[in-house]
Amino acid sequence: MKANHIDDSLALHTDLYQINMAETYWEDGIHNRKAVFDLYFRKMPFGNGFAVFAGLEKVIEYLNGLSFTTSDIDYLREQGYQEDFLQYLKDLRFTGNLRSMEEGEIVFGNEPILRIEAPLAEAQLVETAILNIVNYQTLIATKAARIKQVTGNDILMEFGSRRAQEMDAAVWGARAAIIGGFDATSNVRAGKLFGIPVAGTHAHSFVQAYKDEYTAFHKYAKTHKDCTFLVDTYDTLKSGVPTAIKVAKELGDSIEFKGIRIDSGDLAYLSKEARKMLDEAGFTDTKIVASNDLDELTIINLKQEGAKIDSWGLGTKLITAFDQPALGAVYKLVAIENEQGELEDTIKISSSPEKVSTPGKKRVYRIIDKKDQKSEGDYITLENENPNEEKSLHMFHPVHTYISKYVSNFEARELHQDIFQDGKLIYQLPELKDMKQFVKDNLAFLWNEYKRPLNPEEYPVDLSPKCWENKMENIKEVRKKVENLK
Amino acid sequence: MKANHIDDSLALHTDLYQINMAETYWEDGIHNRKAVFDLYFRKMPFGNGFAVFAGLEKVIEYLNGLSFTTSDIDYLREQGYQEDFLQYLKDLRFTGNLRSMEEGEIVFGNEPILRIEAPLAEAQLVETAILNIVNYQTLIATKAARIKQVTGNDILMEFGSRRAQEMDAAVWGARAAIIGGFDATSNVRAGKLFGIPVAGTHAHSFVQAYKDEYTAFHKYAKTHKDCTFLVDTYDTLKSGVPTAIKVAKELGDSIEFKGIRIDSGDLAYLSKEARKMLDEAGFTDTKIVASNDLDELTIINLKQEGAKIDSWGLGTKLITAFDQPALGAVYKLVAIENEQGELEDTIKISSSPEKVSTPGKKRVYRIIDKKDQKSEGDYITLENENPNEEKSLHMFHPVHTYISKYVSNFEARELHQDIFQDGKLIYQLPELKDMKQFVKDNLAFLWNEYKRPLNPEEYPVDLSPKCWENKMENIKEVRKKVENLK
Repeated sequence: MKANHIDDSLALHTDLYQINMAETYWEDGIHNRKAVFDLYFRKMPFGNGFAVFAGLEKVIEYLNGLSFTTSDIDYLREQGYQEDFLQYLKDLRFTGNLRSMEEGEIVFGNEPILRIEAPLAEAQLVETAILNIVNYQTLIATKAARIKQVTGNDILMEFGSRRAQEMDAAVWGARAAIIGGFDATSNVRAGKLFGIPVAGTHAHSFVQAYKDEYTAFHKYAKTHKDCTFLVDTYDTLKSGVPTAIKVAKELGDSIEFKGIRIDSGDLAYLSKEARKMLDEAGFTDTKIVASNDLDELTIINLKQEGAKIDSWGLGTKLITAFDQPALGAVYKLVAIENEQGELEDTIKISSSPEKVSTPGKKRVYRIIDKKDQKSEGDYITLENENPNEEKSLHMFHPVHTYISKYVSNFEARELHQDIFQDGKLIYQLPELKDMKQFVKDNLAFLWNEYKRPLNPEEYPVDLSPKCWENKMENIKEVRKKVENLK
Repeated sequence: MKANHIDDSLALHTDLYQINMAETYWEDGIHNRKAVFDLYFRKMPFGNGFAVFAGLEKVIEYLNGLSFTTSDIDYLREQGYQEDFLQYLKDLRFTGNLRSMEEGEIVFGNEPILRIEAPLAEAQLVETAILNIVNYQTLIATKAARIKQVTGNDILMEFGSRRAQEMDAAVWGARAAIIGGFDATSNVRAGKLFGIPVAGTHAHSFVQAYKDEYTAFHKYAKTHKDCTFLVDTYDTLKSGVPTAIKVAKELGDSIEFKGIRIDSGDLAYLSKEARKMLDEAGFTDTKIVASNDLDELTIINLKQEGAKIDSWGLGTKLITAFDQPALGAVYKLVAIENEQGELEDTIKISSSPEKVSTPGKKRVYRIIDKKDQKSEGDYITLENENPNEEKSLHMFHPVHTYISKYVSNFEARELHQDIFQDGKLIYQLPELKDMKQFVKDNLAFLWNEYKRPLNPEEYPVDLSPKCWENKMENIKEVRKKVENLK
């Protein structure tokens, strides 16, 4: 980065069109009209039955710190923006409201994860950064939770920094993996920044540096009480495992021989053979760690083959969400203040029904059956509705409306919390370990059919009849307008 | 991030095992032994015939600034590292040598992109961050260059920030896209940090905020002389394009009507119809910009259908390298100082021949035929070889050695530059626009068969006979050692 930009800030971390639009709004005097934007994704990532929301901590940090620096303003001046508008930007802070799900909330397609209600220009300006944050962190938390579904109580370690898409992805991805159910990361900076347990022992190059495994393991053990030896530098079964056992026997109680790590070859076969060798040598408490391009599908296969693996190190496939590296969340204007100072609903039309936005200020509820404590689905209402005041709900698919049911004896749990009010942060972030627990607790409300990794059932995300009718009316109005143009 | 970590640094942006290994090296007194590591990837990304190296600027920044802060050391102390070792880390700076390709160099699988020669503990510590940087930036520069191959002189814009994997990816990815051949980015911060042209006009929400396109376009034109109108908020051909034309006619010379942008629907059909409408209205100089989940294969298809698109906005598929979101570059120890102070070669064995590392300090040359100025392939030699002193080279495939040829009348262009010497930066980074030109110039040396997007020929990356024999001897020695263990 250029030395004259040491006051780099995130205010410019936005798309140019946001600033162009803000300029028009400002010149037209409507920049302070209240606008409401919903953030949501449409398609479930990885074909999974649920997603896990992450990213709120950084969104809070970003909104709280939003302010253009001197060099930001200078840069915009060079781009030709008018001076009065620049003065406006110079004083701009986030003064709006944020309502959001909490990190670790289970979330589904087509329901607002968060809602910004703020002066139009502000709400528009923050779109890019918020999407950038939420899209990635939610994707990784979801991938991690998906992996957790197939590994039960095994230990899960995030090893992906070297393959992450640049540095922010490495640390924030590590944090999202923890929320999704991982136990530790190899990234020391993530460990420090977020208080995540860190894990790791030594690399192949360490064995190479000492030429042979016997010397390398001995040297490692001299400095570190807990020893997990990497056994595949030369030959796992002929050299690595026997040498690890030999060294562990020689050192006895002076070390904690935790086990071995295998990073290449046929992990099913090698782990089973290594397990036998370790057990025969009396090291029945040792653990076998496996890594090497793993993902949830490979793990399912390895488990089916009876692999003796206690602990999994996941890198590339987790940290990049390799099979679907983008979530595709969008940020849509759903209401805007008119000249009379009233909020008016607005809609974005598309020829694909799934892409039509749902107008209006809304709330999102999870409908929990009081008897079995399982969720009947999520239920999106207009702002002034309260499903808890109703005896029975008519829940129907928002596109294929004939798929419907009536639900009674339920509790409607609201999914959004107030985070910012009039620009003031009024929310206290939970600890990371509580977020992780929150995921577990929330998943308990879901029937298993929504949690299986392959071909899960589609979880219902429905609109209340009022919300649905409001949408239909908005669609009609737009169609009429377009027809009238001809 | 926790408030007590305001002195966050990149020194901890590493895997825990690097610090564990460094501790052993330090306690064993071998941390200052010279070690040589090569960074390279094995498989060409996207099935492309070439890759474009990017990331050196950030690697330089990282190595130059490498230093543990007070809170870094405090954190490591909490993790149980011994005090003397922490004192060593506190004073640690990068004191080694870096030789590297320049950004924009064309690079292929299995050849060192860069080489670190440094005290063992330092060289090990920096592995994670350097891979993190180079893997991502090279991936995106390559993806961009691949897109550039199919778009010729069309304008290419990077629009991916909202879908990038966190913030660093957004800005460094934008920069890498420019190196690979893109013309502009929508990310204003990237524009400021790297001096990249920025692009963008307005969003759908802008039209929604003004309720109808006629008002929205007029308002936009009042504030911005250059106008590209987004025409697909309601109905592209019935509403968007006719309204854009109407407004442009009304405003005449008071604006520059640059054209329209289409962001949904059938881009081939819509662009052809829109082109006709614009031309009939006399706006033959206007441009049509298209966006919406584009990648190089979709663009090839749209062009085959005769789409009238002049300018392409690429988001998700570019910035995440969607079809292969990780490059997979590795960092391997190839030589290490022994007790006598001499460098000794070292090797990492694997059962797959492509995964066996190539031992020794090496150089990389591109062999250019003097007559046609095309490359015959790349040629990796031991450090003390100089192919320019030889009349004829025997170039053969390093795995399938019977594939071979003799080359004479050539010039061997060395691909590495000295970047750091004894920890001192001795290299001046070129301007971004020169890097972009460098890619163009370098691609001119390649026959077209290596540049086609589908099923390109495999470009030869060969070892000199001496380098190859040295590798074979190293393999034999390791095999002997493993046999002796039995």
